[in-house]
Amino acid sequence: MLKIKTIEFKDEKLYLLDQRKLPNDCEFFVCETFEDVDFAIKDMVVRGAPAIGAAAAYGVVLAAGQFMKEDKDVFVKRLQEACDVLYNSRPTAVNLMWAVNRMRRVLEKNESLGNQEIYDRLREEADRIFKEDLSTNKKIAEFGNSILPQKATILTHCNTGALATTGYGTALGVIREAFYSGKDIFVYADETRPRLQGAKLTAWELVQEGIPSRLIADSVAATLIRDGRIDLILVGADRIASNGDTANKIGTFMLSVVAKVYGVPFYIAAPTTTIDFEIESGKEIKIEERSAEEVTHISGVRVAPEGINVYNPAFDVTPAENITGIITEKGIVKKPFKENILKLKE
Amino acid sequence: MLKIKTIEFKDEKLYLLDQRKLPNDCEFFVCETFEDVDFAIKDMVVRGAPAIGAAAAYGVVLAAGQFMKEDKDVFVKRLQEACDVLYNSRPTAVNLMWAVNRMRRVLEKNESLGNQEIYDRLREEADRIFKEDLSTNKKIAEFGNSILPQKATILTHCNTGALATTGYGTALGVIREAFYSGKDIFVYADETRPRLQGAKLTAWELVQEGIPSRLIADSVAATLIRDGRIDLILVGADRIASNGDTANKIGTFMLSVVAKVYGVPFYIAAPTTTIDFEIESGKEIKIEERSAEEVTHISGVRVAPEGINVYNPAFDVTPAENITGIITEKGIVKKPFKENILKLKE
Repeated sequence: MLKIKTIEFKDEKLYLLDQRKLPNDCEFFVCETFEDVDFAIKDMVVRGAPAIGAAAAYGVVLAAGQFMKEDKDVFVKRLQEACDVLYNSRPTAVNLMWAVNRMRRVLEKNESLGNQEIYDRLREEADRIFKEDLSTNKKIAEFGNSILPQKATILTHCNTGALATTGYGTALGVIREAFYSGKDIFVYADETRPRLQGAKLTAWELVQEGIPSRLIADSVAATLIRDGRIDLILVGADRIASNGDTANKIGTFMLSVVAKVYGVPFYIAAPTTTIDFEIESGKEIKIEERSAEEVTHISGVRVAPEGINVYNPAFDVTPAENITGIITEKGIVKKPFKENILKLKE
Repeated sequence: MLKIKTIEFKDEKLYLLDQRKLPNDCEFFVCETFEDVDFAIKDMVVRGAPAIGAAAAYGVVLAAGQFMKEDKDVFVKRLQEACDVLYNSRPTAVNLMWAVNRMRRVLEKNESLGNQEIYDRLREEADRIFKEDLSTNKKIAEFGNSILPQKATILTHCNTGALATTGYGTALGVIREAFYSGKDIFVYADETRPRLQGAKLTAWELVQEGIPSRLIADSVAATLIRDGRIDLILVGADRIASNGDTANKIGTFMLSVVAKVYGVPFYIAAPTTTIDFEIESGKEIKIEERSAEEVTHISGVRVAPEGINVYNPAFDVTPAENITGIITEKGIVKKPFKENILKLKE
């Protein structure tokens, strides 16, 4: 298990392992206000749908601390505004919205209490969100491991590990579990341009854990898949529509197309909080476009000429038809997705 | 037209535009010996199959200058050794081997002449290879342009422009020609990890020429193709087998799979010198593996943790079945490739 905590709330501050600085530096970004958390989410100090959700929940707690001395009406109003800000800090991952909405409900339910008591209730809820994510991850890992053979070469994309969650991981949590349980696991990790989460974060976790693996440029995956060198593809999710269409890190869709053509199983691993029951299909998912600099500059060094235009979507949508199954904490969802996803709502 | 010459032989030296330093610096790497040329090819000062061929030819000329004062036997032997070194400087592109073999034949045919005369003959042959490539490029560009509609959005990969050839380009030459001829052209350029030839070189050429375009991470292409935003894919080649299987920059195969699934035309643009009539299929093409540092470091900055293993193939093979047509200086080759490629040999 990773010794380092990605997210920790202590002494009324939120400590986030600064993922912009890995793997070269292991530093913590300390949030004292909800604005700090908003910045940390936007700038990807913290990233990964479940981790963002937990961080945002603690952001609401920080806001409660900031406005503690205000009159009740102002206190509640400021907290609602803080919820709005955090809710909108990134547009694609639905766990963020789900976590903030949980905090909102606690606020609404306890509006009659004193400010300190409201603070305490919010703090308890954020702690619950945090802990639930960890236990959810473990369940996902166990369900996922149940479908992995004794020996498997797994391709993964982006970072879905301890760094993307509150501690164990979704897709990488499954890999971790399989490795711990003694299976003969080999991982190919896509570097995941433009932010290089695969190179910077997944590779870092794999090295820390001693899991046999190789890092590849994203475009190498197709050849490995065709040549029968990948037994299974395991990725995370930022939002899953009720028909199974899945938004995840840019590049996921491409893998799913090649996997389908060459008959390689393609699994999503994600908590049910990633499911957006409100939307019918992936067409309704808003895809975040990020800055040109993520493509034109790497580690602050310019790699593309001045004057070049850039198109930089952070996510893409994999159609349900390309997905073999969705590994959740409630079990593995198979086709027909629409029916089976609806059952998770109950 | 680009004002800067990629390759120029003058004052008994070979001047290569240093492609490792673009787009930030425009510097020339001066080769005074064939060993300098060998290094320049290996380290990708010069890259792109046709450009490598021309550079290697001039490398043989430099060798002739180096050994001019030796006795005839030693002179010929050293030149043959230099040919061997240059022939093996990179393993995948066949133009390199073709160019060196042309130089070898000139050497063999003129062995009875004096050293200076042999030098002159070699120099003439290298100049011919250089000039032929330029006129070949123009013909490819014209044939390619004939199939482009008045308005087209084209996706390209790696760099196949003036920088990859002796002056105009293959796939990017077609785009250049279409743009010059007044067509409404828009280009999506893959950045092309790990060496970023798309970001560093293609984007630079596009900006220099004022061709409307956008740079993308390699994994964005699949979504553009699916969404009907790409009319045509145009890429180069490093080696084409006699059945049409094509080795090209890593990532090409992936594009071809997605293009086939979504019915987008996929064209190779390459001189017939790229065809290896000796091999039946792509299975016989040796794929160069390059250093881990190309993936773990960018612009000298480490982006992946120490201790991570890397798999870094420089090329992949696109099966003929995924290719719509091969644009050569002798016309556009269509299916059945095996029959039609054989006709080019005549």
